[in-house]
Amino acid sequence: MSLLDNLHWRYATKKMNGETIPEEKLNYILEAARLAPSSSGLQPYRVLVISDPELKEKIKPIAMGQSQITDASHLLIFAAWDNYTENKIDSVFKKTLNQRGLPSNTMDDYRNNLWGMYSQKSEEWHAHHAAKQAYIAFGLAIAAAAEQKVDATPMEGFDPEALDELLDLKDKGLKSVLLLPLGYWDENKDWLVNMKKVRTSKEEFFMEPSF
Amino acid sequence: MSLLDNLHWRYATKKMNGETIPEEKLNYILEAARLAPSSSGLQPYRVLVISDPELKEKIKPIAMGQSQITDASHLLIFAAWDNYTENKIDSVFKKTLNQRGLPSNTMDDYRNNLWGMYSQKSEEWHAHHAAKQAYIAFGLAIAAAAEQKVDATPMEGFDPEALDELLDLKDKGLKSVLLLPLGYWDENKDWLVNMKKVRTSKEEFFMEPSF
Repeated sequence: MSLLDNLHWRYATKKMNGETIPEEKLNYILEAARLAPSSSGLQPYRVLVISDPELKEKIKPIAMGQSQITDASHLLIFAAWDNYTENKIDSVFKKTLNQRGLPSNTMDDYRNNLWGMYSQKSEEWHAHHAAKQAYIAFGLAIAAAAEQKVDATPMEGFDPEALDELLDLKDKGLKSVLLLPLGYWDENKDWLVNMKKVRTSKEEFFMEPSF
Repeated sequence: MSLLDNLHWRYATKKMNGETIPEEKLNYILEAARLAPSSSGLQPYRVLVISDPELKEKIKPIAMGQSQITDASHLLIFAAWDNYTENKIDSVFKKTLNQRGLPSNTMDDYRNNLWGMYSQKSEEWHAHHAAKQAYIAFGLAIAAAAEQKVDATPMEGFDPEALDELLDLKDKGLKSVLLLPLGYWDENKDWLVNMKKVRTSKEEFFMEPSF
């Protein structure tokens, strides 16, 4: 099936049935997130993979009690860097150049320009900017799940501070930004599954520039 | 080809050759952006489609002179709502309920809770939040382009205020957040095309939770 077919197939699953997804499907979905593009290739985010039932039980109340947290096979947590630093940027660029067999000073001008811009921004801007990159990876993980016929529920509705504390994310320089429970729909209990997918019309969504 | 194959195939094209992409491929890519999921289904962003050579010439200096702006077949501009209002949210929810044949008050509690939360946030937060949703659609457009074997260059490097002014976006309640030139690589002039794709290693990217 094509990407568009998969996007039509998927929906934000409201009730999952507790079945486990095969490891190769999980790995496929994770790999799509890892291959996502990001600004300057920094990938300023990580993905936590939660399958432990006890831990999911602890996360559920932090996520407004949503049942998919515990009924999912795996819960993915997308967590973004809390800020950019010259060292973090340098470390990624050095690794890239090393893997490409290029001299380690090849990107010095680019890095200096980038850090010149980022260093003038607030910590809040840094966190928003890093989080935005995670949304790209999140979208590709959703598409990958649909391709694998795995149900998923994109979620922003949780208390990030509480989750960061539970998982010691602050110590790792991360802030949780998105949740993606992965599993299988409960056919008889999901009210959304037979609802029409509604999107902004093409006429409204695509705009001709006026100038 | 699978999504993962397409993600391996794609790269941030640095030099395009000016060829035009077929309209059906353009429409396919646009439709992937339109079908993207978003927080509460609000789709707080729009996509501008630019093919006029004169307009692309005007945009190029606003985007650091990057040649893909003018060498692209089409330039997509992802622009997000500058804020949320109760009216905007209400309008989307009403349309959804109408298309689903549900009573217009079905989502009143949900909307009130949502607006109760959003109304306490700053305009800056609103703009960041709306922009984040656009990043999901942006990622799916990139995946769709790769599936169609159309080259694309994800771009944040431009002056959003200048672009908003050029395109009168402020009057439309929008802020430009991302550019996506679509076209075909210039095989002989693209320095990036033969470089290894580098990503954070699986060991570093996927994290086991500690708690």
